[in-house]
Amino acid sequence: MKEFALAVHGGAGVIPRNFADKIKQEYLDGLEEALKVGLVILQKGGASLDAVEATVKTLEDNLKFNAGKGSVFNHEGNHEMDASIMNGIDLSCGAVAGIRGVKNPIKLARLVMEKTVHVALIGLGAEQFAQKMNVEFCDNDYFYSQLRYDQWTKAKEQNSIRLDHSVDDDSQPKEKGTVGAVALDKNGNLAAATSTGGLTNKKYGRLSDSSQIGCGNYANNKTCAVSCTGTGEEFIRHVVAYDIHSQMFYKGLSLEQAAHNVVHQTLKPDDGGIIAVDNLGNIVFDYNSVGMFRAAADSEDMFEVKIWE
Amino acid sequence: MKEFALAVHGGAGVIPRNFADKIKQEYLDGLEEALKVGLVILQKGGASLDAVEATVKTLEDNLKFNAGKGSVFNHEGNHEMDASIMNGIDLSCGAVAGIRGVKNPIKLARLVMEKTVHVALIGLGAEQFAQKMNVEFCDNDYFYSQLRYDQWTKAKEQNSIRLDHSVDDDSQPKEKGTVGAVALDKNGNLAAATSTGGLTNKKYGRLSDSSQIGCGNYANNKTCAVSCTGTGEEFIRHVVAYDIHSQMFYKGLSLEQAAHNVVHQTLKPDDGGIIAVDNLGNIVFDYNSVGMFRAAADSEDMFEVKIWE
Repeated sequence: MKEFALAVHGGAGVIPRNFADKIKQEYLDGLEEALKVGLVILQKGGASLDAVEATVKTLEDNLKFNAGKGSVFNHEGNHEMDASIMNGIDLSCGAVAGIRGVKNPIKLARLVMEKTVHVALIGLGAEQFAQKMNVEFCDNDYFYSQLRYDQWTKAKEQNSIRLDHSVDDDSQPKEKGTVGAVALDKNGNLAAATSTGGLTNKKYGRLSDSSQIGCGNYANNKTCAVSCTGTGEEFIRHVVAYDIHSQMFYKGLSLEQAAHNVVHQTLKPDDGGIIAVDNLGNIVFDYNSVGMFRAAADSEDMFEVKIWE
Repeated sequence: MKEFALAVHGGAGVIPRNFADKIKQEYLDGLEEALKVGLVILQKGGASLDAVEATVKTLEDNLKFNAGKGSVFNHEGNHEMDASIMNGIDLSCGAVAGIRGVKNPIKLARLVMEKTVHVALIGLGAEQFAQKMNVEFCDNDYFYSQLRYDQWTKAKEQNSIRLDHSVDDDSQPKEKGTVGAVALDKNGNLAAATSTGGLTNKKYGRLSDSSQIGCGNYANNKTCAVSCTGTGEEFIRHVVAYDIHSQMFYKGLSLEQAAHNVVHQTLKPDDGGIIAVDNLGNIVFDYNSVGMFRAAADSEDMFEVKIWE
């Protein structure tokens, strides 16, 4: 059993092997930076819950990833964000959905978990709560980037809903954007956190799997912590994160087997992927798309940042 | 195996045995009316999906139940409603949350399922979609009742979040309001539908389990259809509806055993209850509260409407 373990993802999808080295490096750097932020917390004996929150926050602050600052445009040209966090010790959890202007949705999800009797708050009600909690808000300029704007314009022209696709430009990855982290800490506790800007040109008010406990995010000390990325609707329909837990808990499968069944049998090719860690510190990445931005580290000096293979 | 089966609930909770006969009869009549609406559809060979939608719509139109017309007041004095529907044939599903003014949230949930590529729409975005679909809207007067208003006033005074509790008046049931229906049709297809006005004095934007696939509502032809009612946060945390499916599918338990485990071991006393039907037409009601408003009928002439026992 490992003392601690941490895995991170920054989205899965069609990530062309020939995309520009400079851009590739920016993704790898972003993942590594986020991984290190969480790793330091775990090395010092901190809680997995703090590690996954801090890791996801770091990715939310990075324009490269579709969450927080880098969130895509919805049909109306706004950035609507979803996030959730779960503590494997006691199944406490918090989620937000359809929020605008909040710099770090994952922080707000944790506040919902800790400061309300509710599990999930949505839309203007969630923003009202954010104001009460004095969380940081940013104006629209903060969330703007030419790349996302062009993606949106193109998607509107084609009347399509794009999973963070690029503008048919092979120098840019066509990933299904969401960011997430899962961790085991020195006390044997698991936690999971997930955050997303959703789909480019998505309908105003679309609820993602990332904000739904059991679908895009789940943690339970009895089994594992899971964070998903991909076509959210499929992850909701198949209750993916909880299904991995169920196959471990009720059928006695390993995390690897359970994840494989869900990703390669239940889901369809190109739906996306998952990252997960079990309560022994075994890390699993699995996806049915061309690639997944991901990184992992553990107490046995494993430290890797990858896109393909 | 039964040809068809239908079960309905109108909320679980503290329902005092001595509450006024006249009011009790109104609840029983409302349940029976809703049951008959769905039953006729199933008898004629109609789809379980149509039966559960029509049954839930009937309860939404009845002021007695906390969904649609009878929805409770939230903290701001509004009625925010959630609903979801799922088809066991292909796991297609639709949900809405945090919507106001829509007469029948369950109809809107079905439209999300059938007319969008998304599974769930929330808040103003969902209302915008409702307008496009020409669904019926009602003004605030439609949703007003003195009882709900008094419950809200009392809850605000006590700074509490009330699960459709009455005003400390034992002549009124203290139920946890939500309505739902599950059905098996002559073609062997299962479906589930759930609708709620949520908690009296709930925070603006609170997302219930009723709108979350796998938590308050789930259907899968391989196992069962489930609709939940109670303290939504606990049903989300434990992914209750999908957990019943999982115990059947992965452990081979009967619906009765799976439901018992979840309601009496996973959940805490007074959290609420579930109604479910398996793919052989076996109906299960299980709850850990004092009572549950419920009704059931099947192709073998079972026909019952109950509150306690």
